[in-house]
Amino acid sequence: MDEPLFDLPRAGLRFDADDEVLARAAWSRLAEPGDAVAGALVDSLGPADALRWLVDAAGAPERAEAVLRRIAGGRELGLGTVDGSPGLAEAPGRLPEVSTGAATGEGPAAGRAARGGAVGLLVAAVRRWAPRLERLDPEGELAVLGRHGGTFLAPGDPRWPSSFDVLGAAAPLCLWVRGDPDLARLARRSVSLVGSRACTDYGVRVARSLARGLAERGFTLVSGGAAGIDAEVHRGALVSGAPTVAFLAGGVDRLYPASSTDLLRRAAEEGGAVVSEAPPGSVPGKQRFLKRNRLIAALSSGTVVVEAALRSGALSTANHAVRLLRPLGAVPGPVTSMASAGCHELLRRGAAVCVTDAAEAAELVGDMGEAAPVRRGESRPGDDLDAASAAVLDALPVRKPAHERSIARVAGLAFADTTGALGLLELLGLAEQRDGGWRRR
Amino acid sequence: MDEPLFDLPRAGLRFDADDEVLARAAWSRLAEPGDAVAGALVDSLGPADALRWLVDAAGAPERAEAVLRRIAGGRELGLGTVDGSPGLAEAPGRLPEVSTGAATGEGPAAGRAARGGAVGLLVAAVRRWAPRLERLDPEGELAVLGRHGGTFLAPGDPRWPSSFDVLGAAAPLCLWVRGDPDLARLARRSVSLVGSRACTDYGVRVARSLARGLAERGFTLVSGGAAGIDAEVHRGALVSGAPTVAFLAGGVDRLYPASSTDLLRRAAEEGGAVVSEAPPGSVPGKQRFLKRNRLIAALSSGTVVVEAALRSGALSTANHAVRLLRPLGAVPGPVTSMASAGCHELLRRGAAVCVTDAAEAAELVGDMGEAAPVRRGESRPGDDLDAASAAVLDALPVRKPAHERSIARVAGLAFADTTGALGLLELLGLAEQRDGGWRRR
Repeated sequence: MDEPLFDLPRAGLRFDADDEVLARAAWSRLAEPGDAVAGALVDSLGPADALRWLVDAAGAPERAEAVLRRIAGGRELGLGTVDGSPGLAEAPGRLPEVSTGAATGEGPAAGRAARGGAVGLLVAAVRRWAPRLERLDPEGELAVLGRHGGTFLAPGDPRWPSSFDVLGAAAPLCLWVRGDPDLARLARRSVSLVGSRACTDYGVRVARSLARGLAERGFTLVSGGAAGIDAEVHRGALVSGAPTVAFLAGGVDRLYPASSTDLLRRAAEEGGAVVSEAPPGSVPGKQRFLKRNRLIAALSSGTVVVEAALRSGALSTANHAVRLLRPLGAVPGPVTSMASAGCHELLRRGAAVCVTDAAEAAELVGDMGEAAPVRRGESRPGDDLDAASAAVLDALPVRKPAHERSIARVAGLAFADTTGALGLLELLGLAEQRDGGWRRR
Repeated sequence: MDEPLFDLPRAGLRFDADDEVLARAAWSRLAEPGDAVAGALVDSLGPADALRWLVDAAGAPERAEAVLRRIAGGRELGLGTVDGSPGLAEAPGRLPEVSTGAATGEGPAAGRAARGGAVGLLVAAVRRWAPRLERLDPEGELAVLGRHGGTFLAPGDPRWPSSFDVLGAAAPLCLWVRGDPDLARLARRSVSLVGSRACTDYGVRVARSLARGLAERGFTLVSGGAAGIDAEVHRGALVSGAPTVAFLAGGVDRLYPASSTDLLRRAAEEGGAVVSEAPPGSVPGKQRFLKRNRLIAALSSGTVVVEAALRSGALSTANHAVRLLRPLGAVPGPVTSMASAGCHELLRRGAAVCVTDAAEAAELVGDMGEAAPVRRGESRPGDDLDAASAAVLDALPVRKPAHERSIARVAGLAFADTTGALGLLELLGLAEQRDGGWRRR
């Protein structure tokens, strides 16, 4: 018989686990972001039943399966698509494999206990969730959120963004929001602009220009609140009076990093939002930053990487965009700048479309028909001439007029075609008759 | 009855039109570069018979068809694939349409007389070729070439580059070469690097770096001999002791432009070649520059556009590379630089692969398996950890050691998995035990 994973009978849960909001808030503490086993379980049983089962299962792991069968009854647990295979941790330097673009569930590597299918996944999950049961305090965390004027958002709420549906079981269990909680509305016309913290002056200039241009086009600007490019994106939106949404890796009670605190406060106060799937008090660890990036990629209609080195976390966001089959753009930069090497690698692999200004970004992520003007360069006299007229224009002397016969020979054209072309060029103001011959005008 | 197009009986040809070399040289004066009707005719009849027919046809256009039938006998004239439709002149600002990548004959717009199929094409061609019959002087032009130590190269010569076959009837009728006439050998491992005359310091730096890197990898560097990027490419090759080939739009007797004269002379003297399909004395007009670009695209294994504005002639070379289905690369630059806007447009359309250094250019155009090293950025401790170890590393305190139970809770992992991960991290030198707990190392 297994040892109980924690002594719940003695400790007890310090809150009403029948309350669906409290139970859901508790789950966002129990499970790490993107834990698809938690997502599938909470989806299937509802947060309160799922929590009750976890308490039972943690106290007597050997009964976990039987208890689950009893609670679930005939309900489908939706774990069939959850990938429980142990894998590599997410890493910022891992670029998307374009060939495997399938939007499979973004399941976490569920440890070494993937044996035994869904039951194996659940037993392994109980083992990793149980240590956090002891200190659960969703009431306290909701109170902290309330003190910041925040909103607890759950799936099913009309303000919950349907763009998260693409994440499947790895969608967030809930969202802790400061600012405007209507993420559904904010997401409707939105674009994610991301980039390196260690950015260059060039990257800053491009980020500002893209952010303002997209803000003027009515887009909500989504980013990660980090220093560098992210900060310029949020700032550019605020300057233009557009809403901006920042996804944090840690709790929204702490507007991290310190350099962005004022900016993030303004984002929440001026029509946008600061959002986390982790409850207040959560520390922003590296893996949480990487998991957070899937929310940036999923919320908006598309993502543009403004400036990113090869190890930039922004490439993780790009990776998520590719896996979710969302449009991805990358802004090129000097090939001599390592700060753009990540963007160039995305372009080389064909994972991202080359984006050079706000109009092109809007074409990528905006509505049908929202095409950027075709870049043609300045038009010049003589553009769009037919071949004969172009050849005659080429053959026309600049100063001393030449006879039509000589022009025909130089142009390599029939005499009659030359005469016709000269007439057309005269009409267009490109040729003139002088002293019985022709010259350029 | 038509009026004779010129009075040949009185003027006569001033050279032995039975001499195949002289006749071919004459044809390169009669027809503009890329004239596919001339190409098909000379291919089918041979240059001398084709010239004799032209003389007859020019004297009595109404007999042209009958005479052609008599000369050709049952021979196929190969005009079936020649596009005689009147069209737009080539323009540098016209970017490739990627969807229509078929390598159709690069036929010229043959004027307004495309009616009547092959015969109509030929009658129109006679009218444009005839005016040049009077002043033909292939002996004089060959003598000028000889004074420059040059070589007259015709198809069938083992030194003729087979890479031109892709041009079909629009292949050059002959080549006027200064320097090493073995273009077949020079083309074997070759890359075309092209760009704007109005280049930036950035473009110059990139051109030099690419040219040297590719020269060191054993490539012949092909370009257009122009000022700006082209000149840097030729110079980069010469500095590295690699052969370089310059295609001129005008005759090779005049090493145009003046700023490139010394460079082009060195190219011809130091193992490379300066090449034109137009005879000595030919003036480099705009349409000839554009037609010349097809030779740059066709000779080498692939083309890389180093820096090009939207109106750059380099985009015409890119256009030819796309139509010939040859690999095309483009080097990105700052989006704030209009001098790179043409490259970015090629990348946006998916016409070109993003190329950032010589290794990537070599991967694009070189042999199978000549892959550029994968760009990954510096590796760091903790890369390639499994998910559990990464989470534990994330959860490890930097200073004050924490107990395994607390680490499991922070990491969101089962106790057993945490213990296992700590052991692995200790082995990797990333974690250490201290005071009964664990911390980062």
